[in-house]
Amino acid sequence: MSPSTDSRLAADLLIRGGYVVTVDQGDRSFFGDVAIANSTIVAVGANLNVEAKETIDARGCAVMPGFVNCHMHETLDRGVFEDLPFTTWLNDFALPKDTAHLPEHIRASALLNQAEMILNGTTTFIDIFRFPDEAAAVAEISGLRAIFSPQLIDDPVGPGESFESSLAFIERWKDRVPDRIQAWFGPHAMYSCTEPTLRKVGKVARELGVGIHIHLAETPFEVQWVAERSGGKTPAEHLDNLIGLDSDVLAAHCIEMTASDMDLLARTGVGAAHCPTSNAKLGNGIAKVVEMQSRGVKVGLGTDSNMTNNNLDMFEELRMASLVQKQQLRDPAVMSSAQSLRLATQGSADALGLGHLVGSIEVGKRADVIVVDLSAPHTRPIVDFGRTNIVEQLVWSANGADVRDTIVDGKVLMRDRQIKTLRINDLAGQVDGPLVDLLKRANVLEKRFAD
Amino acid sequence: MSPSTDSRLAADLLIRGGYVVTVDQGDRSFFGDVAIANSTIVAVGANLNVEAKETIDARGCAVMPGFVNCHMHETLDRGVFEDLPFTTWLNDFALPKDTAHLPEHIRASALLNQAEMILNGTTTFIDIFRFPDEAAAVAEISGLRAIFSPQLIDDPVGPGESFESSLAFIERWKDRVPDRIQAWFGPHAMYSCTEPTLRKVGKVARELGVGIHIHLAETPFEVQWVAERSGGKTPAEHLDNLIGLDSDVLAAHCIEMTASDMDLLARTGVGAAHCPTSNAKLGNGIAKVVEMQSRGVKVGLGTDSNMTNNNLDMFEELRMASLVQKQQLRDPAVMSSAQSLRLATQGSADALGLGHLVGSIEVGKRADVIVVDLSAPHTRPIVDFGRTNIVEQLVWSANGADVRDTIVDGKVLMRDRQIKTLRINDLAGQVDGPLVDLLKRANVLEKRFAD
Repeated sequence: MSPSTDSRLAADLLIRGGYVVTVDQGDRSFFGDVAIANSTIVAVGANLNVEAKETIDARGCAVMPGFVNCHMHETLDRGVFEDLPFTTWLNDFALPKDTAHLPEHIRASALLNQAEMILNGTTTFIDIFRFPDEAAAVAEISGLRAIFSPQLIDDPVGPGESFESSLAFIERWKDRVPDRIQAWFGPHAMYSCTEPTLRKVGKVARELGVGIHIHLAETPFEVQWVAERSGGKTPAEHLDNLIGLDSDVLAAHCIEMTASDMDLLARTGVGAAHCPTSNAKLGNGIAKVVEMQSRGVKVGLGTDSNMTNNNLDMFEELRMASLVQKQQLRDPAVMSSAQSLRLATQGSADALGLGHLVGSIEVGKRADVIVVDLSAPHTRPIVDFGRTNIVEQLVWSANGADVRDTIVDGKVLMRDRQIKTLRINDLAGQVDGPLVDLLKRANVLEKRFAD
Repeated sequence: MSPSTDSRLAADLLIRGGYVVTVDQGDRSFFGDVAIANSTIVAVGANLNVEAKETIDARGCAVMPGFVNCHMHETLDRGVFEDLPFTTWLNDFALPKDTAHLPEHIRASALLNQAEMILNGTTTFIDIFRFPDEAAAVAEISGLRAIFSPQLIDDPVGPGESFESSLAFIERWKDRVPDRIQAWFGPHAMYSCTEPTLRKVGKVARELGVGIHIHLAETPFEVQWVAERSGGKTPAEHLDNLIGLDSDVLAAHCIEMTASDMDLLARTGVGAAHCPTSNAKLGNGIAKVVEMQSRGVKVGLGTDSNMTNNNLDMFEELRMASLVQKQQLRDPAVMSSAQSLRLATQGSADALGLGHLVGSIEVGKRADVIVVDLSAPHTRPIVDFGRTNIVEQLVWSANGADVRDTIVDGKVLMRDRQIKTLRINDLAGQVDGPLVDLLKRANVLEKRFAD
C-alpha cells in the first residue's frame, strides 16, 4: 500500500499515526498514515515518508472514509410534527408546511443540515427537496460533496418543483463545481408525478448524463396505487416502463420488493437507498437488505430528513440498519460490523454512482476522510493483538460526536470539532427564527404549539 | 410549584434558567430553576428566590431527571465477540470468558461502565454480574445510585455466584450506603438456577426486604425449557410458583409473554426491564411494550451489557424502544416522545421500586438531575411558542454526548463534561490491559484476535 521509494513524497496534508480503516476490497485496517495531495489520496501505509504542508496527529483515533448519506431532504422542521397519526401528519401539517416554503427557509435548512453533517462526519450527501439553488449555494461554501435533486411534484404542482424548474437548476449547476456538486432530477414518486413527466425525466436525464433520484416501493399504498394504474405491475416494474431503470437511478426505501423486483434492480444497476430509522418511525415496514445484497443490488444507507429520523448521525443509522436485519432474520451473525460500515461508506457511494471517487481510503480516490476520537469510555476497551476491535467499537458504540476532524477533497472542513467553513454562532437567529416564520406562513404554528 | 414566600430559600445548589422537563404526573415542562438542599429537590419553578451555595447556569440547556437504566451487566468485553452465530458466541467465547473473571476484571469493568454512565447522564442503574463487591466499591466513589444483584448461577455453579456468596454480599452492602446503594438477589434465570435455590431466594429476599432481579421470557428456548419441566407453564407462571411474583421482582426482557402473563405481572407489581437494542442484536424478538403498558405492567428501560448493545446511551435506547414499537405496530403515533422519555426515567424508577425517590424533577425527590446542552445543530431548531419542541429534540435527536452536567443526590458528578469522582486518565492501562488479561485467562484471545 505504501509506495516504496527513497525520496520523500510531497503532500498537502498528512494524517499521521491513526488506525486506518480503509473499507477497501479487502477491508484492510492498520495503524498508519494517509497522505493527501491535490484533493486526492496519494499514499496509505505505515510510517509513510512524506513531506507535508500540514499534518494532523491522529494517534488514538480511527481514520476512515467519510460517511455517504444516500437519501435525505434538507428540511428545517425537526421535532415539530411528532407522534401524529399518518394522515393528520400529512394533511394538516406536512403538506401545508411544504407548500409554504420560501427560498430563505431552504437556506436556513441547508445551513443547519450541512453544519450537522460536517460535525458528524458525513462527507457526501444527496438532497431531494425544494429551491435547491439555496442548498447548493450553502454546499459551495460548506465544502461538502453533494448531489441536489430538485423534488419534482406535478400531480398536483407545488411551488418551484416543475420539470422546467428542475431542468433549469440542472443546467445552472451541472458543471459549476465539478465532481463535488452534482445536479440530478428528483421526481418525488410515481404517485406524485404525471406519467408524461416521468417519461420526460427519463429521456432528458440520459441526454444530459445526470442521475435520477426517486422514492420507490415505500408503502403498501404505493404498491396498490401503481397496481391499479399499471395492470398489476409492481412499483419497480412500472418505474422501469416509465423511465427505464439503469445505473443512473437511485431509488429510496425499496421496502415493498418482490424477488423479481430485486433481480430487476440488480440487473439494471439501480442503487437502493435504505432508510431504516425513517421506515421504523413512520411504521412503513422493513426493507429486505440482506436479501437485496445477496441478489446483487447496490444498497446504500440514508437518514431520510430530520423530520423523520431525526438526527442525521450515520453511526446511529448504520447500527439501526444492522439491528433491524438481525432482529427480522433472528440471526445475530447477519450484517456484520464490517458490512454495516461498508453500507454507510462504499456501499452508499456505489449506490450514488460515486464509488470510483469516494467511499474508501485508497490511493487515487478523493480525500474524503474523517478522524474519529477513540478516547471516550464508550469506545473502549481496545484490544490490539494481531488485529484490533476498533471497527467493532466504531460500528456498535461510536456516534457523530466522536468525529474530531472532517476532510472533503483534501480540505479540512472541521478540525478539533470546530467547523471551518460555515458560521453557526447564532442558531436562534439562523434557524429557530426561520422555522417559526415557516410555520406561521403555513398557518400551523398555533395549531401545533399554542397551549 | 414554586413556594410562595417572602424570604429567600436556602439551598446547596441552584440550577438556574434551563428548560425544566419534569416528567412529573402532568409531564410539565417550563423555563425555570431547580433548587437542591440536603440531596433533595426543595423547589422547582420560574425565577425562584433562592440563596444557593453553588449555582449552575443552565440557560440554553434542558434540565431533566437523570436516566435510570434498569437492566445491565457491568462487563468489560465491548466489541470483542461480534457477529457470531449464537451457539459459537455462547460456548466458544462468552462462557469461557465469563468463568475466567477475577475480581480485578470487575473493578476495571465497573470503572469503564460507571464513567460512561456519568458521561451520558445515567444516574441510577441496576447491575447483575460477578464479584459485585468490586463494582459496589466503585459506585461508592463514582457517586451513582445503584443496585447490585450478584448474578447467581448454580446449574452449573460458577465462581463467586452461589446463594451463599450472594447472601453474604447482601449482608455486607444492604445498609452500607443508605438509599444510594442497594443489594439484591440476582438469580440469573430459571434455566441456570436450581429450583431449590430459586425457592430459597424468594423466601430469604422477603425476610431481608431486598429485591430480586432475574432474566425472564427472553427466548423461545426458555419457553420450551420451562414448559417441559413445569407441565406446560409459561416462564412467568413458573417463576410465580417458584419465588412468588411481587413488586420486589424485576424481570429483564419479558419478550415471550402471553396476555395472561402480562396480567400476572401487572397484578403482582413486577417490574419489566425492556432492552430493545439487545433483543434486536441477539435476534431475540420484540417485547410487546405498548400492550404490557396498557395492561398495567410497570415497564422500564435497560441497555443490557456493553457486550450486547454496545454503548450504554439511554437516549439511543429510548429512541430504539419507540422505533421498534412504531415499526412493529405500523403506527407512528404509539410510544410518543413524552412516553419514551418517561420509560427511561420515571418508568424505570417505578420498575425498580425507586419511583418515590427518583425518576422525575419534583419537590421532595432526591436530586438526580442532568443538564443537557441544546446548542448543537442536531437538537435545533427550537420553537418556543406557548410550548416548545425541546422534549421532542431530546427524545429524537440528542445523545449522551449532549449531557453537560450530571448530579446525583445533589452532588455534582460531572460538570462541563468533566467527571469529578472517577479518574479515567489512562484507559489503556485501566481497561484495555485488564480485558486482554481476561481474554488470555479464558484462552480466547488468540482464537478471536490473532490474524
